[in-house]
Amino acid sequence: MNVTSSNPATGERRELDFEETSTEAVLALATRASLASREYAGHRLDWREELLRAMAEELEGDADALVASAQFETALPEARLRGELARTAFQFRFFAEVVGDGAFLAVSIDEARDSPMGPLPDLRRMRVPLGPVAVFGSSNFPFAFSVPGGDTASALAAGCAVVIKAHPAHPATSAACFAALSRAAARLGAPEGLLGLVFGLDAGSELVRAPEVAAVGFTGSLAAGRALWALANAREVPVPFYGELGSANPLVVTSAAARERGGVIGEGIAASVTLGAGQFCTKPGLIFVPTGEGGDALVASLGARLEGEGPFTMLSENIAENFRRGSRSLETVGGAAVLVAGALGEGAHVAARLLEVDAARFVAEDSLHAECFGPLAVVVRFDGADELRAALEAAEPSLTFSVHVAEVDPDGAALVELGSRRAGRVVVNGYPTGVGVSWSMHHGGPWPATTAAGATSVGAAAIERWLRPVTYQSVPEDLLPPALRDDNPLGIVRRVNGRLVTTR
Amino acid sequence: MNVTSSNPATGERRELDFEETSTEAVLALATRASLASREYAGHRLDWREELLRAMAEELEGDADALVASAQFETALPEARLRGELARTAFQFRFFAEVVGDGAFLAVSIDEARDSPMGPLPDLRRMRVPLGPVAVFGSSNFPFAFSVPGGDTASALAAGCAVVIKAHPAHPATSAACFAALSRAAARLGAPEGLLGLVFGLDAGSELVRAPEVAAVGFTGSLAAGRALWALANAREVPVPFYGELGSANPLVVTSAAARERGGVIGEGIAASVTLGAGQFCTKPGLIFVPTGEGGDALVASLGARLEGEGPFTMLSENIAENFRRGSRSLETVGGAAVLVAGALGEGAHVAARLLEVDAARFVAEDSLHAECFGPLAVVVRFDGADELRAALEAAEPSLTFSVHVAEVDPDGAALVELGSRRAGRVVVNGYPTGVGVSWSMHHGGPWPATTAAGATSVGAAAIERWLRPVTYQSVPEDLLPPALRDDNPLGIVRRVNGRLVTTR
Repeated sequence: MNVTSSNPATGERRELDFEETSTEAVLALATRASLASREYAGHRLDWREELLRAMAEELEGDADALVASAQFETALPEARLRGELARTAFQFRFFAEVVGDGAFLAVSIDEARDSPMGPLPDLRRMRVPLGPVAVFGSSNFPFAFSVPGGDTASALAAGCAVVIKAHPAHPATSAACFAALSRAAARLGAPEGLLGLVFGLDAGSELVRAPEVAAVGFTGSLAAGRALWALANAREVPVPFYGELGSANPLVVTSAAARERGGVIGEGIAASVTLGAGQFCTKPGLIFVPTGEGGDALVASLGARLEGEGPFTMLSENIAENFRRGSRSLETVGGAAVLVAGALGEGAHVAARLLEVDAARFVAEDSLHAECFGPLAVVVRFDGADELRAALEAAEPSLTFSVHVAEVDPDGAALVELGSRRAGRVVVNGYPTGVGVSWSMHHGGPWPATTAAGATSVGAAAIERWLRPVTYQSVPEDLLPPALRDDNPLGIVRRVNGRLVTTR
Repeated sequence: MNVTSSNPATGERRELDFEETSTEAVLALATRASLASREYAGHRLDWREELLRAMAEELEGDADALVASAQFETALPEARLRGELARTAFQFRFFAEVVGDGAFLAVSIDEARDSPMGPLPDLRRMRVPLGPVAVFGSSNFPFAFSVPGGDTASALAAGCAVVIKAHPAHPATSAACFAALSRAAARLGAPEGLLGLVFGLDAGSELVRAPEVAAVGFTGSLAAGRALWALANAREVPVPFYGELGSANPLVVTSAAARERGGVIGEGIAASVTLGAGQFCTKPGLIFVPTGEGGDALVASLGARLEGEGPFTMLSENIAENFRRGSRSLETVGGAAVLVAGALGEGAHVAARLLEVDAARFVAEDSLHAECFGPLAVVVRFDGADELRAALEAAEPSLTFSVHVAEVDPDGAALVELGSRRAGRVVVNGYPTGVGVSWSMHHGGPWPATTAAGATSVGAAAIERWLRPVTYQSVPEDLLPPALRDDNPLGIVRRVNGRLVTTR
């Protein structure tokens, strides 16, 4: 069956000149990737940096064509796509920097010594690549969380080959991005099979099952992520599955903050809820607002800003249909009142919506806790700190947790503490959309937001997912990897006899 | 049903004055642990260090009684048990040092700045405790991998409460160790419920299922570990399961090394195989020896040393019975020849055994790849590098991989590389038994040696299993945890704007 590319704005469909990937082809790619991974792991780190930078260049060189392809397939605005592509290229360069830094190898050297437990041998630890990584990109970021996204860049940075499952909502863009990455690999003479690309739902399942695949990175829906997570665990040799599955992202406004500047906060929330038509896994979907005047002003301002926002063209008809279903469920099953009744529309088109429930109802009704992907938020009105706390503890753990506080606020500390227990990122007086690529970013969170709370899919630490430690005991200098040799030829930070040494 | 303590050497049984833990009691302990964990996480790090040191002191203060109890229940020699208890106390102090070092928090601070992607907010990341940890100790180390073992010490160091499942082979020792730890907790005024202890198989399953349990540490058999791993994944909210399940631990002697000093290596292997009656998860169980004179000399020396070794009293009749079953399976199913036919004995008593197969048989017959826990090794004779490589790739991935090489050895580099792909620790010209508590130790390995190849159960990095990162975005100074404040009040190593800063 040939793969088809569609335009969600117009419904236009184009048949592409390649087919879904057969089981045999998936297994062959995984085998090639395994051989390539082994060879690649033996390359010098500075060569790895060069490869990552070459990939950034090839993506930038193809910007016009890539953006045009993504515009057709996602209906996202050109400026947004150009920005996303720039971020994607930046991400490759950032991971080149992370490789050069060397701290990701977590090198620790304990020279042979006597101890209270008797003599200890020479022990030297570093991290080594796991092997081929299967990457499942998301629909909502055709570049930054797809074929050339953070999972691909971080896996390559870690020293692993990748086999990528193209997202069905942007197959042509996936193929074009893959071609750009492949050109960079060819230009540098990378091992054949370092990069692989597969199309089709079945090919994705086969990829997770392929014996040579050593780990899986996934960004997408709860249903698909859970199913693939179960597949990864059902293998004869289970492999780590790093799934980022989205969340409802609570945003709390304290009573003091609502009194102080409820109207302004309402405007900010509206902008965050409708950014990218609400198609961010970090969209604030649950807005906890106090009862009373300040809260009323906030909700009024939020509603006024959302009223008439849209219609938006969603990334696919499928996503628009899920949005309609989700919105209806919040009303009919959840019992939420409709404050802003944006048109549920047709095809891929929907408009912004705002719903409201009280905290007691929110605690009692599980269906209100679900993420509704798109331009919609549910306001949860609370009366006092106890009711707020109960409602927040009832919500699912999440990727982000935002708190708006007043200059001096009796509720601030407890809410920041609560957020740190139930989310991967705590935002104060800001909005959770926007996930910067940096050393300190954590994009993850407790189950069900992700399948692995210790892992991040954005930022420097994303590389750690594709590595495991090995200790070399009494290994002679000439048989040690360079990172572990006495003279520190890589010039990286290492722990030596218990002390961090940052200079050569 | 009252819990019973037995002496494997004599068969004597003593009924203890407590019962197996009921489901209700397990759930109550998990709930208490959850509340305690939250309170404990808020304590200062230096208080946490003090608690760990107090636990070391209480264990040492009780040494005579603890060792006597363990001698009765395990039949291990007094000197070995005194050494193990000293190591266990050392381990608590070592984790106090790890806490004080602060690097385990993985702090990274990116101050707000402009970037090619637009302005980035202030982002500060640290690791936070997961919550209550369930600990399953092993039979073979009644102190160091049991109630007061590495999982308990590292979880407490991470800021988590623990609920421990006592091993049925040493319940009285478990209770006595727990009392010592509890005294330390009480002396320092630790939150009630910080430590819990349960007895019984069903109690163990209930503990893994308890909703408040946030992670599981396990050391033990493949069968029990796999079953509990499946339970942890089948929960409504799955939790990380860190299982160290043992392995067959290949040890390779190159042709050059066998020629150079086959006899000496044979003696060393015999000592490692019989250490603690072979009841170490790091016992070298598969000995890859070249055909020809050097190899013959090695096998002769190994056999001569093992001949007549024993009878040993195993840790329990159950373990001795498994040893008999395993040994018979290697002979009858695997087709291994018997070189040293130590008596399979009765009750808990067995003697050392040595078996032999050729590499082709080893590749063909899966039953030969299984670990046989106890004083037994299987010699695999290989003819040339290709046959060796095929046999090593057929073996299961393992905790350790040892290589004996000559001064100048053409096979050394390739074997170290192969070992690093298939094991957690690569030992050159040494023996894998003995796992030092240190910064650089990695005690883990790819599946099926463990359920989580990225994790270690020994050494400083063991603490990382019980933590997850949280990023604080734009959080005002007074709402930040101390580790993230500008003035670095904890004086710990931090990454600031991408650069590691080790001084205050």
